[in-house]
Amino acid sequence: MADRKRAREWKLDIGRLPTGPRNMITDVAGVTVGHATVRQGNSHTGVTAILPHSGNLFQEKVVAATHVFNGFGKTMGTLQINELGTIETPVLLTNTLSVGICATALIKYMLKDNPEIGRTVGTINPVVAECNDMYLNDIRSIVLQEKDVYAAIADATAHVEEGAVGAGTGMKCFGLKGGIGTASRVVTIQADTYTLGVLALTNFGQLKDLVISGRKLGQQLEKLQKKSEKGQQEQTERGSVVIIVATDLPVTDRQLRRIIKRCGIGLSHTGSKMGHGSGDLVIGFSTVNHVMHQPADKRRTLVYLHEEELDAAFLAAAEATEEAILNSLLMAAPATGRDGHFLHSLSEYL
Amino acid sequence: MADRKRAREWKLDIGRLPTGPRNMITDVAGVTVGHATVRQGNSHTGVTAILPHSGNLFQEKVVAATHVFNGFGKTMGTLQINELGTIETPVLLTNTLSVGICATALIKYMLKDNPEIGRTVGTINPVVAECNDMYLNDIRSIVLQEKDVYAAIADATAHVEEGAVGAGTGMKCFGLKGGIGTASRVVTIQADTYTLGVLALTNFGQLKDLVISGRKLGQQLEKLQKKSEKGQQEQTERGSVVIIVATDLPVTDRQLRRIIKRCGIGLSHTGSKMGHGSGDLVIGFSTVNHVMHQPADKRRTLVYLHEEELDAAFLAAAEATEEAILNSLLMAAPATGRDGHFLHSLSEYL
Amino acid sequence: MADRKRAREWKLDIGRLPTGPRNMITDVAGVTVGHATVRQGNSHTGVTAILPHSGNLFQEKVVAATHVFNGFGKTMGTLQINELGTIETPVLLTNTLSVGICATALIKYMLKDNPEIGRTVGTINPVVAECNDMYLNDIRSIVLQEKDVYAAIADATAHVEEGAVGAGTGMKCFGLKGGIGTASRVVTIQADTYTLGVLALTNFGQLKDLVISGRKLGQQLEKLQKKSEKGQQEQTERGSVVIIVATDLPVTDRQLRRIIKRCGIGLSHTGSKMGHGSGDLVIGFSTVNHVMHQPADKRRTLVYLHEEELDAAFLAAAEATEEAILNSLLMAAPATGRDGHFLHSLSEYL
Amino acid sequence: MADRKRAREWKLDIGRLPTGPRNMITDVAGVTVGHATVRQGNSHTGVTAILPHSGNLFQEKVVAATHVFNGFGKTMGTLQINELGTIETPVLLTNTLSVGICATALIKYMLKDNPEIGRTVGTINPVVAECNDMYLNDIRSIVLQEKDVYAAIADATAHVEEGAVGAGTGMKCFGLKGGIGTASRVVTIQADTYTLGVLALTNFGQLKDLVISGRKLGQQLEKLQKKSEKGQQEQTERGSVVIIVATDLPVTDRQLRRIIKRCGIGLSHTGSKMGHGSGDLVIGFSTVNHVMHQPADKRRTLVYLHEEELDAAFLAAAEATEEAILNSLLMAAPATGRDGHFLHSLSEYL
Repeated sequence: MADRKRAREWKLDIGRLPTGPRNMITDVAGVTVGHATVRQGNSHTGVTAILPHSGNLFQEKVVAATHVFNGFGKTMGTLQINELGTIETPVLLTNTLSVGICATALIKYMLKDNPEIGRTVGTINPVVAECNDMYLNDIRSIVLQEKDVYAAIADATAHVEEGAVGAGTGMKCFGLKGGIGTASRVVTIQADTYTLGVLALTNFGQLKDLVISGRKLGQQLEKLQKKSEKGQQEQTERGSVVIIVATDLPVTDRQLRRIIKRCGIGLSHTGSKMGHGSGDLVIGFSTVNHVMHQPADKRRTLVYLHEEELDAAFLAAAEATEEAILNSLLMAAPATGRDGHFLHSLSEYL
Repeated sequence: MADRKRAREWKLDIGRLPTGPRNMITDVAGVTVGHATVRQGNSHTGVTAILPHSGNLFQEKVVAATHVFNGFGKTMGTLQINELGTIETPVLLTNTLSVGICATALIKYMLKDNPEIGRTVGTINPVVAECNDMYLNDIRSIVLQEKDVYAAIADATAHVEEGAVGAGTGMKCFGLKGGIGTASRVVTIQADTYTLGVLALTNFGQLKDLVISGRKLGQQLEKLQKKSEKGQQEQTERGSVVIIVATDLPVTDRQLRRIIKRCGIGLSHTGSKMGHGSGDLVIGFSTVNHVMHQPADKRRTLVYLHEEELDAAFLAAAEATEEAILNSLLMAAPATGRDGHFLHSLSEYL
Repeated sequence: MADRKRAREWKLDIGRLPTGPRNMITDVAGVTVGHATVRQGNSHTGVTAILPHSGNLFQEKVVAATHVFNGFGKTMGTLQINELGTIETPVLLTNTLSVGICATALIKYMLKDNPEIGRTVGTINPVVAECNDMYLNDIRSIVLQEKDVYAAIADATAHVEEGAVGAGTGMKCFGLKGGIGTASRVVTIQADTYTLGVLALTNFGQLKDLVISGRKLGQQLEKLQKKSEKGQQEQTERGSVVIIVATDLPVTDRQLRRIIKRCGIGLSHTGSKMGHGSGDLVIGFSTVNHVMHQPADKRRTLVYLHEEELDAAFLAAAEATEEAILNSLLMAAPATGRDGHFLHSLSEYL
Repeated sequence: MADRKRAREWKLDIGRLPTGPRNMITDVAGVTVGHATVRQGNSHTGVTAILPHSGNLFQEKVVAATHVFNGFGKTMGTLQINELGTIETPVLLTNTLSVGICATALIKYMLKDNPEIGRTVGTINPVVAECNDMYLNDIRSIVLQEKDVYAAIADATAHVEEGAVGAGTGMKCFGLKGGIGTASRVVTIQADTYTLGVLALTNFGQLKDLVISGRKLGQQLEKLQKKSEKGQQEQTERGSVVIIVATDLPVTDRQLRRIIKRCGIGLSHTGSKMGHGSGDLVIGFSTVNHVMHQPADKRRTLVYLHEEELDAAFLAAAEATEEAILNSLLMAAPATGRDGHFLHSLSEYL
């Protein structure tokens, strides 16, 4: 992807907060991201793994929250996040019909390091989200295997590859090649600085609706595309966008839920209409205030921000989401997939 | 299980509404239930399938709703039920670490009869709920396979086997052998009769809390058990109860949600404390008002009950839940499972 | 009420946890309760005020949560409790058509001690819950006035008068005289003891459904009542129950929500069917971890319990709710109200 | 307001759907809107009433739903809307500390035409939403009276006055004069046309964030304003926006909730950050499928749209919200209020 440029290199104006050093979700210390990509025949798909920290997540859970904009989708694990306010596994992204495979692999991965699960302690809650990459990928063949999950987790580093990679391999966004994008923001609250990072798996929207930094370019691009389109696109939105938020802000799960709801603002700024058939949701976690599975002292302490200070975090979530989505478009190469289906890259038009 | 008797045969008084002819969830016309049971070495587990009707569920969805009493658990599919108010697959019950396997099998099962999924229409939302049968079953070995799901679906009939069968094979309830139980109620509203049926997968509670038809027998049984207990039981509740409600009441998904919330009343009457580690939830569906995947006419009509008439359905849900749970206990044989763990049957004490 | 006895004096068995010294919500240190009662002509109604602490609640908010079992009702203030996890005023209970009056009075009460509201800080969120006392009270005449609210607040002490007093004056429960009841439980977690108290405003249920300590006495009482009933009772449930939970357990608002959901278990044990027309909800607060309106340091610390320890609190909430409801029945005198409507007292039958 | 122009007259490009004939919420047949405005001394406030139809709303309820973007606020009535999916009174908008007064007046208004309330049927659920107009209005003095509510209801017609009128009198939006704005969209589904209208009470945002039709004009306007600002503005957002959606689309309450969630897209497009202190919520109703309070036949029928057709309604909600908010700004005159506080009008800058 060396010849593609991120939104910031295109001088796109997306908000007023400064970014972290990488402008990636991994600017939140300890967070890593890895991919496994499968391209074979009509299969163009993959898995992306986000690790909140490098330790034993079952033993040291992270504070977490979810928010659903449109619940057309089969994300797994949110029920327990909502009840307990924690995540205890890596978060996986994949294609819509591979949630089961990924969940099983993630369970096995966690069992390995936690021999007491199923013996002296209970069970484990795998978190797996999905989008439907059926335009480029033959979802019916279910090619992903457990080893792809292990590969994605093993691949996790602080550098995030963007575009058509991992779970983003077959995704389509605004009628263009979508996939993985990321961005981050730094906020200052009473002399302390905190980072909030977003990773988006983008697979939603129709070209005519695309907005870039306030400019409604979609209809213009649609005209351009109609001249060159190689494949016939379906018109109904069957997409989805999954947004992962990481932060080192000290917040309770309720505060985190308030923060991640503001990802909807950034999503709206890209032109999303949150269509009926689009499963749009956010999963967020904070890397401070680890929740121990079995602490010696049952009275615990957590640090949190005074509620009025959350406004800075709200803005960070909105801005980073918008930029992450644009990065997913800009960093994706044009792609040919299942049955010769073809998608242009946004970067071709800029 | 020929020598065990259901609650009604024990003359237990559970409410005032009449039951359906079978006193089973399958008294709701069209509903069938099947099991696949696995017992090998330390594995004592299985799958139970509930089919809302015998047609193509993806093409003719049923109105549905979910309600979570305690979200410690990894049930899959509820996100989309909540958004769209429909179920489009059979509902599977299984053990806590087999949700992934069951989801994958259920997806494949649905793909077979719906060749347009992933081609001209979108994806499919498998519904799989679970309880943690780790006391009798070695959950770490993940023995269930896709073929077990197909077997459970193929086994579905209007007769429901109860007790230690299917997903209920390894379950423990109130420190006794739990599993599958079912019951039904008939309500009359303005000269029309309707049926509401419940199937419960019971895996919750501590013996001291057991209440049978208002009688707090738990502590008494606990004393009896202490004399005879072969295995050492864990004290923390790591259980769950999944309650499936079927009805032919004409209701909207909102009304159905109101109805299934009342299962909590029946659950409470058995002595449940809805413990922290217990994933307690209900999934309900109505067999009227099918929702077509692609109707010719986009203006649709549905029949629903005037809101004030729901009280009869509320009572039915509460009563049938209580009786279904008791049936799961009464119909389960004593069992020896993983590492020699043993559970008595409630019927031994009555 | 000197000649009436509480549930415990009747030797009713309601759970296994010990009570606090008063067996009242005010066993939670700092909590006080006051009433204003109006009986004039066809008006039989009132206001009850629960004060989480005696300081300035706007400046020092308490952690709070709400849970709705059945949302038939017009309780005010829950929207903001859900968003921010705090209560910043006393909690008022009153009759269904007086919520507006009480809200206005409560606002004025808070303005008095907080001159910066509406000037340098924003607004105030009054919390007012209600039940419909129309059987004994002429709700259409709206007789309550702002001064009644001030009187209820001024009356607040650590002793809680129960029965037909304050907001409970005109309430009907299980076809008998209902009203105000309270109870408490003490739990021990790692050598520390904590108190959880419940105050219930009871106005729900039909006599035939009444259960006392597991005994289904309702139908029996119904027969007795039919012989003596002076007035003609409506058959449809138009009631409600409002449950207030106070605790000194150190919990987050999410944990508190989990705890107060278990009040539904105690409610179920009394025979409630959570009828369509019954507005059944809980409002809870914790007196530890005060949330300052404008703290100097924006990084705050809170103490909370490890999640697995909540089971003790769950049980306390269930038990105290059941006993508070029974106390509301047992401590209420028989009453004659609007248009000669008459209600027996439960204590007449025991 | 004769000399001010609406967004459409300014040729602002806000979406692609056609508007209704008035481009107002009242394009939905039967819907009317009225205002009562109070300007006296430091009081600059009022009431706005939206009537879903001109009949007896208690007897013929409308299908309704609510959605909360940020629950900082004390809107009354949403609890029951969420439970029962209906509205049974006019909807009132007012200032933050007048919800109680308005609720009481609305109750009395409904009692007048429904003598059976409190006698043979139960209670009534008044719906009152609010924003905090403290910058221009002395909210502490609580000047609104019950007669203002009756005046607003009596004033209701199919023409909606916009800007600084009714509940909008004292509102501030993006640091400019806000207030009441409205807009509508027409959608065509299978040869049938339907109308969706929005009325917004705008009182949120900071000037620097204002976006008009994709153009981020806020920071530019902020510079202009700094040169001329007469008063000192607070920097923290203490605002709110209340959005009322009316439609004649045949939808269930669940579908309606999906539709009104998309108002957040239009809100985002104006530059809203949904700040911590901003109570942002939507209340929607559909004028088809009236729900009778006491129908003779308890089996009812309702018409609804196939779920996939909702995309058109989603777009209408987003577009009409954006335009209604802009209209509230453009139609508001500059205003001087409490203690000489002054707000410019957006129209001064265009």
